[in-house]
Amino acid sequence: MSELLNKQYRLAKRPVGEPGDDTWEFCEKPVAQPGADEVLVKIQYVSLDPAMRGWLNEGKSYIAPVQIGDVMRAGAVGEVIASNHDGFSPGDMVVGTLGVQQYAICNGKELHKVDTRIAPAPRYLGVLGMPGMTAYFGLLDTGKPQEGETVVVSGAAGAVGGVVGQIAKIKGCRVVGIAGGAEKCRYLIEELGFDGVVDYKNEDVMAGLKRECPNGVDVFFDNVGGDILDAVLARINLHARIVICGAISQYNNTKPVKGPSNYLSLLVNRARMEGIVVFDNSKHYGKAAMEMAGWMAAGKLKAKEHVVEGIENFPNTLMMLFSGDNFGKLVLKVTDN
Amino acid sequence: MSELLNKQYRLAKRPVGEPGDDTWEFCEKPVAQPGADEVLVKIQYVSLDPAMRGWLNEGKSYIAPVQIGDVMRAGAVGEVIASNHDGFSPGDMVVGTLGVQQYAICNGKELHKVDTRIAPAPRYLGVLGMPGMTAYFGLLDTGKPQEGETVVVSGAAGAVGGVVGQIAKIKGCRVVGIAGGAEKCRYLIEELGFDGVVDYKNEDVMAGLKRECPNGVDVFFDNVGGDILDAVLARINLHARIVICGAISQYNNTKPVKGPSNYLSLLVNRARMEGIVVFDNSKHYGKAAMEMAGWMAAGKLKAKEHVVEGIENFPNTLMMLFSGDNFGKLVLKVTDN
Repeated sequence: MSELLNKQYRLAKRPVGEPGDDTWEFCEKPVAQPGADEVLVKIQYVSLDPAMRGWLNEGKSYIAPVQIGDVMRAGAVGEVIASNHDGFSPGDMVVGTLGVQQYAICNGKELHKVDTRIAPAPRYLGVLGMPGMTAYFGLLDTGKPQEGETVVVSGAAGAVGGVVGQIAKIKGCRVVGIAGGAEKCRYLIEELGFDGVVDYKNEDVMAGLKRECPNGVDVFFDNVGGDILDAVLARINLHARIVICGAISQYNNTKPVKGPSNYLSLLVNRARMEGIVVFDNSKHYGKAAMEMAGWMAAGKLKAKEHVVEGIENFPNTLMMLFSGDNFGKLVLKVTDN
Repeated sequence: MSELLNKQYRLAKRPVGEPGDDTWEFCEKPVAQPGADEVLVKIQYVSLDPAMRGWLNEGKSYIAPVQIGDVMRAGAVGEVIASNHDGFSPGDMVVGTLGVQQYAICNGKELHKVDTRIAPAPRYLGVLGMPGMTAYFGLLDTGKPQEGETVVVSGAAGAVGGVVGQIAKIKGCRVVGIAGGAEKCRYLIEELGFDGVVDYKNEDVMAGLKRECPNGVDVFFDNVGGDILDAVLARINLHARIVICGAISQYNNTKPVKGPSNYLSLLVNRARMEGIVVFDNSKHYGKAAMEMAGWMAAGKLKAKEHVVEGIENFPNTLMMLFSGDNFGKLVLKVTDN
């Protein structure tokens, strides 16, 4: 296996604002042999997620930052091609935090087997992976939607947002998505069954929310922050629940984060704003995945992946998340399968 | 009774920013006779509360705004001097939303009798009134402090803050108050038994919190908003609860409210920010007042009222709340008793 070459991206410098050319170091080096209890995985798809931007910052967060010189952290799915671990054999398909690279050597306990006969490999990075789990637990455990309530989700055509909206529909809610552009909005209505959409790139969000949420907003699942969070805060109902999943509009700020000016709407409406991190629910992933797979089989939960090919495209592809150019779960195909 | 004159303040004009001379109309008019089922109350003390600033603004809130020309809304305590209501007799001491005036005629169902042998009249506007109920329910039901946790309260020497801190002590918490000035800080430590104080007028709040909260912040009861809310957000622990009771630093803004820049600390820490309005708990006031009276009798809950005399001083006295010049529950004595 010594002839195998591994292409990878390492963190060269912490970015200020948007990651740029000097953020990454592209490396190519021979693939090593797995040690005792280790597994060698040939990665097929690398997951690109908004949270990755946060991992580049120094300082306390819910997970340690990526260190300078380290392979960039990322979820990925691939095939075991060599194993010194009893639990894995060549040919097994696995997911784990394998990094932005083509080959990974890792301890078996960081890996989970997946069955690509049930769903294609990239889906285990989307609906059946972290974004799906984030949507499932964030909406159901923290948002607590009740039948007949109005649920609004921002970043609605993204990996998490699309799942949030579909689960809210399954629970009998009126679902309104906020997304950018006519194509995404059409998709939310026609493909995913949303009841209403607000196109933040082409209309006033306040006016759109007023039109689509005539009975106000009971649950808001926020992936974007900024002005959109403020607009929704102005429309919430008594005892509304706001789930803070992310704030992609603020991640590349060089100025302080824009805090929600309308936060006193929480007081007026005795409402709640609560943050979530998916890892807290890891014990219950299995049960959730099973329920989600059932919904998928029943045609109630649809998945969409946006695949970009070539590991060399990692830096530019990551930026699609911040410009909103991805449409569905963004993954990078890094080797042939 | 036709010779009685009633001095009162009415809302003349909605203020932009701080209420000024043109906000109020001072009137003097003869006292009318109570009608069927009505009661005439001679008011002794009028309650001055930060929430009154919000009632001057047009627009949707948790209560309708005061209308132009109306007597300014305020809680008050006084003596029944004439009654056409079976439940009240002359000599009864009562509290209710009686307005900024010396005499009020009102429907008996808006009044509650109080016993001034148990506690002096102004205390029914403080610890045993709305501020006390706000502290009790906001801290216990929404903040949910657990023994050994660190509870921080802003506006700590105010009517609500002082009670919050003392109840948190009763519940076995480490209690840190944020207040302005050495005298108030000394009072919190020496009289009310707080464990630590941060003097926001004389030190950096971030540094003070770091010193006084070595184990972080589990519950924050916020009365002030602005930079202090951001400073505390930077120090919260996993699963912290932030109770939004008010934002006095922002009430006279002519610019948009400063939203909390550090709100993503809610995400990092899976923490919760929730608004409260005391009226929601009105069914349970009786039980709470009984428990509070027990703590007072046991010396565990102390009360402090700041009494200013003369109804003519209403406009300036109200402003003491915003400059932080009051020390304890601020009341206006409007007639002799």
